[in-house]
Amino acid sequence: MLSLYFDGALSVKNMEKPIVCENEALIKVKMAGICGTDHGIAKGYIPNYKGVLGHEFIGDVTDCCIPMWVGRRVTAEINIGCGHCEFCKAGLQKHCVERNVLGIRNKNGVFSEYVTVPIENIVEIPEEISDREAIFIEPLAAALEVLKSVSIATNDKVLIVGDGRLALIIAKVLIRAVGCKLTIVGKHSEKLALLKKTNEVSTINTLLLDDFSNSFDKFNVVIEATGNPQGLALALKHVYPRGTIILKSTYGQSVYFEPSFVVVNEIRIVGSRCGSFISAIDFLKKYKTDFTYLISAEFALCDAIKAFEYSLRPDVIKVLLVF
Amino acid sequence: MLSLYFDGALSVKNMEKPIVCENEALIKVKMAGICGTDHGIAKGYIPNYKGVLGHEFIGDVTDCCIPMWVGRRVTAEINIGCGHCEFCKAGLQKHCVERNVLGIRNKNGVFSEYVTVPIENIVEIPEEISDREAIFIEPLAAALEVLKSVSIATNDKVLIVGDGRLALIIAKVLIRAVGCKLTIVGKHSEKLALLKKTNEVSTINTLLLDDFSNSFDKFNVVIEATGNPQGLALALKHVYPRGTIILKSTYGQSVYFEPSFVVVNEIRIVGSRCGSFISAIDFLKKYKTDFTYLISAEFALCDAIKAFEYSLRPDVIKVLLVF
Repeated sequence: MLSLYFDGALSVKNMEKPIVCENEALIKVKMAGICGTDHGIAKGYIPNYKGVLGHEFIGDVTDCCIPMWVGRRVTAEINIGCGHCEFCKAGLQKHCVERNVLGIRNKNGVFSEYVTVPIENIVEIPEEISDREAIFIEPLAAALEVLKSVSIATNDKVLIVGDGRLALIIAKVLIRAVGCKLTIVGKHSEKLALLKKTNEVSTINTLLLDDFSNSFDKFNVVIEATGNPQGLALALKHVYPRGTIILKSTYGQSVYFEPSFVVVNEIRIVGSRCGSFISAIDFLKKYKTDFTYLISAEFALCDAIKAFEYSLRPDVIKVLLVF
Repeated sequence: MLSLYFDGALSVKNMEKPIVCENEALIKVKMAGICGTDHGIAKGYIPNYKGVLGHEFIGDVTDCCIPMWVGRRVTAEINIGCGHCEFCKAGLQKHCVERNVLGIRNKNGVFSEYVTVPIENIVEIPEEISDREAIFIEPLAAALEVLKSVSIATNDKVLIVGDGRLALIIAKVLIRAVGCKLTIVGKHSEKLALLKKTNEVSTINTLLLDDFSNSFDKFNVVIEATGNPQGLALALKHVYPRGTIILKSTYGQSVYFEPSFVVVNEIRIVGSRCGSFISAIDFLKKYKTDFTYLISAEFALCDAIKAFEYSLRPDVIKVLLVF
């Protein structure tokens, strides 16, 4: 089977179809999304990762020891815990020290014709959600985790720093589920324009970073989703005393940081990561929010390297591999 | 009147007795405590501060336009807000941008025979609290603010990093008001021993930093009160995923910090500063907790410079000026 493999460099190659173990399902992948973490791995952000990349996907179960799953259209939660530790027992496999992570840590990912995942990770996609809508379940779950990490009220003044995939999805979540006063700052007018175009309410303010750099405006809640080390300093500059900064970016670099500023201004900094797929599906059903306008291009799996390169273009949001 | 004055260097000098304005009280200072912030200012941590140092004190009101205050034994909240901004209106003068701060910012402090403070800052000390107990109201209020910043439960595993004045007071607050499993790590065995000596319950574990440096033990809540830039890294090393770090130290230096670690582990970092004097007085009344064992020495105001030097000794906790 064809796969996009990484072993220090990317290559499309033929691999053995995986053998499905007990408690696993074999899934024929139909569609997969390239995300920032995939780029991070390709740049060497996760040392020693070798394997098939990819974790945002949908597909059909073709083999499983529980017959009811066979033929169903599914996606899967990406963290595979040990099952025994206190985090796994609390449903927080993402914090299991022994965890494997689909396409990220010690487990072949979904940029491949077939993938195996533990049955307990599988989530069925309801009929009313299309394939291309469903591809956003994983990043939407990460965006919704913001609302589980902190309480954001309708009268809060919220700033999102960043205009990438995750930032735009978070913006949409806040508009729909909270309806707070929202400002979003980014470097790419064409990405910000996308958000404005599909914005049904008028409470969002989109600003280019250059136009914002002399501003002293402050916010109750600042969401840092730039994916780069400059984001934290900007967030600290624009948060009110007693305000909250939610960190979503992972970029594996250290930054200079002044703890006293956080103490004197009694700021809260909250790290927030991936979230519940069930919550994401509920959101898609409840709010009928369509994220497919974020799809910039689609490629075949044999053109995966070209797709990877294309997805690095600054004007591109989401690139799909369609099998 | 005699005062300890700072203008780049410390000097004990004779100054004019301050004139009491409308809405102010004139207080004859009886006793004052030297704290870490005073040392910070003396080292140049707050640029351009010129004036009388000191903010932990008790004294008697000798002049006030509201006659009922005259003769009363009082202390005073240290932040003097503009009175008009949203923070002042919410009782958060400590975050008023225009604030003056007793002995810290644009307002002569209490290492002086007399001091004036706004009437609304004055807090009466109940008879049942002795002078030397009352001198701990300000740092106790800062310690109690930890419990207002985050919720700490009896079954939480809590680490305090630091063995200075504030760290020891926080430890006592947690033992008395929460009763959680508590570990405290510091550099000074004699300071940690002080805590052990007066500890009525057996749930506290005191450790020397050298003995702890190879530990991988993790905690739900880590309170960073070292007063130095190494504290944050230690806190990050010892916090569980989804755990909370409470920052209490102000040292005006930047540190290297990896935001991705906070994101991946979904850690909360909460800055916490000074707190309510009323809450501190209530605590002293309710728990009958005596902090006077933390008093290392007492000096006369004329010996204030000697007192300052003495208070820098590594084995010293709290030094008082007694007038």
